[in-house]
Amino acid sequence: MLQFSINKAFFLQALNATKRAISSKNAIPILSTIKIEVKKDYLTLTGSNGQISIEHTIASSQEDAGLLITTPGAILLEANFFINVVSSLPDVSLEVTEIEQKQVVIRSGKSEIILKGKDVDLYPRLQEISTSNPLVFETKVLRQLIAETAFAASTQESRPILTGVHLVLSHHQEFKAVATDSHRLSQRQINLEKASDNFDVVVPSRSLREFSAVFNDEVETVEVFFSSSQMLFRTETISFYTRLLEGNYPDTDRLLTKTFDTEVVFTTSKLRQAMERAHLMSNATQNGTVKLEITGKAVAAHANSPEVGQVHEELDTESISGSKLTISFNPTYLIDALKAIKSEQVTIRFISPVRPFTLTPADDSENFIQLVTPVRTN
Amino acid sequence: MLQFSINKAFFLQALNATKRAISSKNAIPILSTIKIEVKKDYLTLTGSNGQISIEHTIASSQEDAGLLITTPGAILLEANFFINVVSSLPDVSLEVTEIEQKQVVIRSGKSEIILKGKDVDLYPRLQEISTSNPLVFETKVLRQLIAETAFAASTQESRPILTGVHLVLSHHQEFKAVATDSHRLSQRQINLEKASDNFDVVVPSRSLREFSAVFNDEVETVEVFFSSSQMLFRTETISFYTRLLEGNYPDTDRLLTKTFDTEVVFTTSKLRQAMERAHLMSNATQNGTVKLEITGKAVAAHANSPEVGQVHEELDTESISGSKLTISFNPTYLIDALKAIKSEQVTIRFISPVRPFTLTPADDSENFIQLVTPVRTN
Repeated sequence: MLQFSINKAFFLQALNATKRAISSKNAIPILSTIKIEVKKDYLTLTGSNGQISIEHTIASSQEDAGLLITTPGAILLEANFFINVVSSLPDVSLEVTEIEQKQVVIRSGKSEIILKGKDVDLYPRLQEISTSNPLVFETKVLRQLIAETAFAASTQESRPILTGVHLVLSHHQEFKAVATDSHRLSQRQINLEKASDNFDVVVPSRSLREFSAVFNDEVETVEVFFSSSQMLFRTETISFYTRLLEGNYPDTDRLLTKTFDTEVVFTTSKLRQAMERAHLMSNATQNGTVKLEITGKAVAAHANSPEVGQVHEELDTESISGSKLTISFNPTYLIDALKAIKSEQVTIRFISPVRPFTLTPADDSENFIQLVTPVRTN
Repeated sequence: MLQFSINKAFFLQALNATKRAISSKNAIPILSTIKIEVKKDYLTLTGSNGQISIEHTIASSQEDAGLLITTPGAILLEANFFINVVSSLPDVSLEVTEIEQKQVVIRSGKSEIILKGKDVDLYPRLQEISTSNPLVFETKVLRQLIAETAFAASTQESRPILTGVHLVLSHHQEFKAVATDSHRLSQRQINLEKASDNFDVVVPSRSLREFSAVFNDEVETVEVFFSSSQMLFRTETISFYTRLLEGNYPDTDRLLTKTFDTEVVFTTSKLRQAMERAHLMSNATQNGTVKLEITGKAVAAHANSPEVGQVHEELDTESISGSKLTISFNPTYLIDALKAIKSEQVTIRFISPVRPFTLTPADDSENFIQLVTPVRTN
């Protein structure tokens, strides 16, 4: 019957990280619990929602943890309730002791709280992933790549494969991430320094967003492993599993043509603010769009809502070249695309009013490209 | 046809304060608009939800406002939309110009936004209140009084009068505010320095909370006026009107007896934290309660949820006197009551397990008293 004491703040942080995998409204009730496994010199917290699973390990040797293990053991506790109880405790440390009938006593200061738990055998087993040949990423590189692509994935289940981000390693060093919801697309490429085994997987964009919430930039590197149905991101203390999506991702390379007729360079932040004004108006009408009028010398934006009013604006540009063009699109897609661009300037290239246009950061037009599909208005 | 220019940040702040009276889902559609009235040397913004109304005046003479009035006039504009438009503007100032057919053009930087408005005659008239003989309050005194009482008012419409706070001035200087939802009660008394006309009104607690949101402590004093159905709080720039509740407020004085058998002094923050732990457990059960066991030497708290677990805790006390007692109650009421007490220590006085108990700040037991009704458990 397990018994350990631990620093409250440290424990709470680990519990909250693990909780990110736990949904309180899961169709499988046992997944609303957190699994606590105490071994001789470490304990592991496990949470899962069936899509992602997080294993968080705390070792006795970690100084800040103040972990003192008296007796190994394992138990399941209602995650939300347990975390609320721990965060309400009066002292800087707490002691957890299992008593009869799968109950634990939590002692802290003069408080004594008894919680009913469940038998650990009721918890589903995580599928194992072979952890040889790790692919090592800098955490901040992975998080940036996720921020640049995951938002472009579909949120609708009509084509489930599009709710994922397509991650491909080809020629052992050419890494590519692509997401599209068929209205817009975002692709980031990275050349890996070290050669690795090729892979081709589709990861739910939601899992990737959770990854970014769990691993902050303080964690320098993360190891990545694959099985046929899962992907594992691992650091010294956290193992983050996500299921992969099944099916073939559409061929997106053919969409990224290199030819174009009109090129405009904007200051990213100014264009974004102008599009947000246009969006206010376009948003007042169903399927509202903004119209961009590019002449040789200037770019003007127009949005019109018959009920509410109009926006007219001359946009600041850095340079304009190529043919005149008038094109309409949903400004939300352009705003999202601009949010993903950290570069001060953005290059937008147009082919025709009915063909998708591309956005690239002015300082890196090779490795990060986005695509927005226009709306026909006539 | 109105025309003025104004500093964007200043205008936005005034618009947002006025918007507090505007609900976007009002049964009377015209109340989703904001009224802009431009006079020779000031403009007034008006918002109302039928319960409260706010009039915000900006004068040309206010330096920060940067208000330059070209032509007086008046118009109604959809409040939310207009505020979103103003906050999205690119420049530090903006110009509003009325054009034909009740439309306005908003110009800022290179943006030009046309909004459709409505005729100002469609807006309901605010009832006038005679503004002679002001009763003057320090804003922070009023706000504290609201914080100490409004939370205890009922949120249920079954007895509408209890959704208000009872404000009474008797003997021209004895000011009293009382709120109760019949489970708990909170009463604050203040002796006014200057004699004023007696009054006896019931103000919706929601209106008072909005008052606290609109007037911060930077505004030193506020003038108060009454009509038969309304109350007006006025500063130099803002007039805040609220409807009064109709009906007789119950006699609450008879509830506040002075006799008691048991008295315990607690450290306010420690008792509150202990009650929050007990509440975690009691909250897991419908109508869950916490049980306090007071012996001559100690006070223990117990909460029990058959499904989830138990809390047992010995409470820190400053002093205990009088008879032994065991009493049960909903810890939420005690937590709310303790939140309203700024004093470091709180005195709780009990009569019997079935009679309400009182809380007073240890440093001011005369002017601020709260009452919590116990729950019979057997």
